[in-house]
Amino acid sequence: MAALQQPPGYRILGEAELRDYLAQFPKVAARLGDAPHSWSIEEVGDGNLNLVFIVRGAADGIAVKQALPYVRLVGESWPLPLSRAHYEYLALTHQARLAPGLVPAVLHHDEALALTAMELLTPHIIMRKGLVAGKVYPRFVEDVTTFLARTLFLTSDLAVPAAEKKEHIAAFTGNHALCRITEDLIFTDPYRAAEQNRWTSPWLDATAARFRDDLDAHVAISRLKLKFLSHPEALIHGDLHTGSIMVTESETRVIDPEFAFYGPMGFDIGAVIANLLMAYLASAGHERSAGERHEFEAWMLGTVEGVWTEFARKFLGLWRTEAKGDAYPVSLFSGEAGEMRLEVERQTYMALLFRDTVGFAAAKIIRRILGLAHNIDFEWIEDTRSRAVCEARSLRLARAMLVGTATFPDIAALTSAARESRQWQPDFA
Amino acid sequence: MAALQQPPGYRILGEAELRDYLAQFPKVAARLGDAPHSWSIEEVGDGNLNLVFIVRGAADGIAVKQALPYVRLVGESWPLPLSRAHYEYLALTHQARLAPGLVPAVLHHDEALALTAMELLTPHIIMRKGLVAGKVYPRFVEDVTTFLARTLFLTSDLAVPAAEKKEHIAAFTGNHALCRITEDLIFTDPYRAAEQNRWTSPWLDATAARFRDDLDAHVAISRLKLKFLSHPEALIHGDLHTGSIMVTESETRVIDPEFAFYGPMGFDIGAVIANLLMAYLASAGHERSAGERHEFEAWMLGTVEGVWTEFARKFLGLWRTEAKGDAYPVSLFSGEAGEMRLEVERQTYMALLFRDTVGFAAAKIIRRILGLAHNIDFEWIEDTRSRAVCEARSLRLARAMLVGTATFPDIAALTSAARESRQWQPDFA
Repeated sequence: MAALQQPPGYRILGEAELRDYLAQFPKVAARLGDAPHSWSIEEVGDGNLNLVFIVRGAADGIAVKQALPYVRLVGESWPLPLSRAHYEYLALTHQARLAPGLVPAVLHHDEALALTAMELLTPHIIMRKGLVAGKVYPRFVEDVTTFLARTLFLTSDLAVPAAEKKEHIAAFTGNHALCRITEDLIFTDPYRAAEQNRWTSPWLDATAARFRDDLDAHVAISRLKLKFLSHPEALIHGDLHTGSIMVTESETRVIDPEFAFYGPMGFDIGAVIANLLMAYLASAGHERSAGERHEFEAWMLGTVEGVWTEFARKFLGLWRTEAKGDAYPVSLFSGEAGEMRLEVERQTYMALLFRDTVGFAAAKIIRRILGLAHNIDFEWIEDTRSRAVCEARSLRLARAMLVGTATFPDIAALTSAARESRQWQPDFA
Repeated sequence: MAALQQPPGYRILGEAELRDYLAQFPKVAARLGDAPHSWSIEEVGDGNLNLVFIVRGAADGIAVKQALPYVRLVGESWPLPLSRAHYEYLALTHQARLAPGLVPAVLHHDEALALTAMELLTPHIIMRKGLVAGKVYPRFVEDVTTFLARTLFLTSDLAVPAAEKKEHIAAFTGNHALCRITEDLIFTDPYRAAEQNRWTSPWLDATAARFRDDLDAHVAISRLKLKFLSHPEALIHGDLHTGSIMVTESETRVIDPEFAFYGPMGFDIGAVIANLLMAYLASAGHERSAGERHEFEAWMLGTVEGVWTEFARKFLGLWRTEAKGDAYPVSLFSGEAGEMRLEVERQTYMALLFRDTVGFAAAKIIRRILGLAHNIDFEWIEDTRSRAVCEARSLRLARAMLVGTATFPDIAALTSAARESRQWQPDFA
């Protein structure tokens, strides 16, 4: 089956072949420093889907990502179109224009090989690993909110004329196999008996069973799924967890937008917030002594608040100055009274977007604990009972966010509930 | 400018040329009966955009519609892509599969000439003309609700898997010039000083001015516009007024879907209800003696109620039996409790769809009284003061629907408000 997906010219590159291939491209070769025989090549992919090579030469390094015709995590039994490399390239280059300096620079792209060569991000690390280690990232709020506000606002109907936006939506239509993964793994499977689900057993057996029977949760997740299916509000990254963000103390880069398509904005903002909340609630499991990570945890909650607050401030700022789309035409809100009324409406719009964000964040937490793909935030907690405690707290918070979304009027209500869940002890604890 | 829009091979057909053209196609010629020289050809287009020819032969007749590269109502100064004939053909053939017998059968389509030959609907008349004359159509509710329920449900995420639906959405992307007309003429211009606006002056001067300053209305119409721009829920007809419906006492056909695209369902349902409400409130202007059309008006309001009630019943019936899409997966609502909870959610879904319907209906009424394109329902009321009274009542109702949408919990609340507006006298009356 997988073979069917391969376009002519596609082959999986080994290290030797990759060296010869890259040597053909002067821009790439120049960046690495000449003398291809001296380049070091290492396959380092630890994600779920692709091959990732780090190539280092005398001058500099590059990262090369090649899509496989199947899901790496699962194997050839789960084919996945190579075209996702095309959509990733499309998204990366568009994001680079919208949010300069916040995504890796693309050096070379090959459609047939489903391969993209990018600048090597060094000494950046995957943010999730840093958070597991209790590191704080003072630059993160500023950068990720610039990325979110600019990529979402500037691809929405608030910024882009309708005809152009529709063409952009259509350009991502073919990425539906990646959307399908999200539809199944996030919006469906954790709430039913699905073979691929797993959780920290036996501690969470009862909780997982409750989610499978929780009809209020099923209604809530289905409403979110419908939004994911039918609200192409903006070009979203589609997989914006802390494993898709590389950081140093002073730099942030968003990587891996292969799930990109036009969808609801709250899905991306919610993904960031969900993963920060999980890092916060997993933190207790990484303590060697009680209270050791108190400062880190305080920073995490401040970061959650900062993500929403700064995102909203920047998004509103763009709306006030860059509203070149067809929605909310300024001609209907002229004069001082008009501008004041529009400002009230902007706040209403943000309140609805916050509600979406809370709901999607809940969905992202639940899938990481009850579904197929888990996080090292929890997975690296060696003691399974202790891991289950952190996961149970996260599920408790997420369930409240999913079913009682409207009871979180603002971000402070969310961090307050997170703080309260941090203290909560499940029955088995 | 207009010339730029013309693909190679396009030319505007005169009657003689049309005869030679049609004679080439055996299916068409056979339907008319041979002997092309004996066919009668008459251009009868009274719409805003196209040429329409009626061709009659010894055996039968056909209707031939050819798109012009500009808006017929305005002239060559307003170019409009010929591709709309392609989208109309796409929609017509899809609707024919979804709602058999409720659209005209297509006999022949020519992309280059932007021309479609269809069965001649006879003795059908444009429903709006019948309503102006006070005729009732006992079959209408049954047929139009079948059309609405089947074309909307069966193209939605409730019925169609996500990947397939996204391909369908993309197939209509190019029809954005027609969407743009709606975006401007319905969702923007009536609420601002636009050169093309007109209304029954001087009677409605003050009302029109109030709409231009009514910021609550501007917020409400902008929210609807955003939905129109970014909620591709289903394949909608896009222009489903009573001038796009041909009727006899026993048959109904929906014609002219050149505005078709994937948009919010409430836009189509609202269009039908808006046009029935206008026919109801225009009726007083067509009376020769007071109370003469009492029975007709009672039928109109019953029809408004029937359209929503029967639509909802059929849509829900399809949801219960034909839910093959990715939204609301049945696996999350198994067992008796699950089915009951899903049924509650279906009712909630319908309540939200009703709200959209009321809002879009309001928008459709307002544009016909304050915007560019008017209805014969009002236009054929010769006495302008009397026409203005009917229009003022309609605007009063529509303004309440637009700004106070949530105050109409069900269709009875809407017909009750319509009845009340029928009795209301504007200041100038």
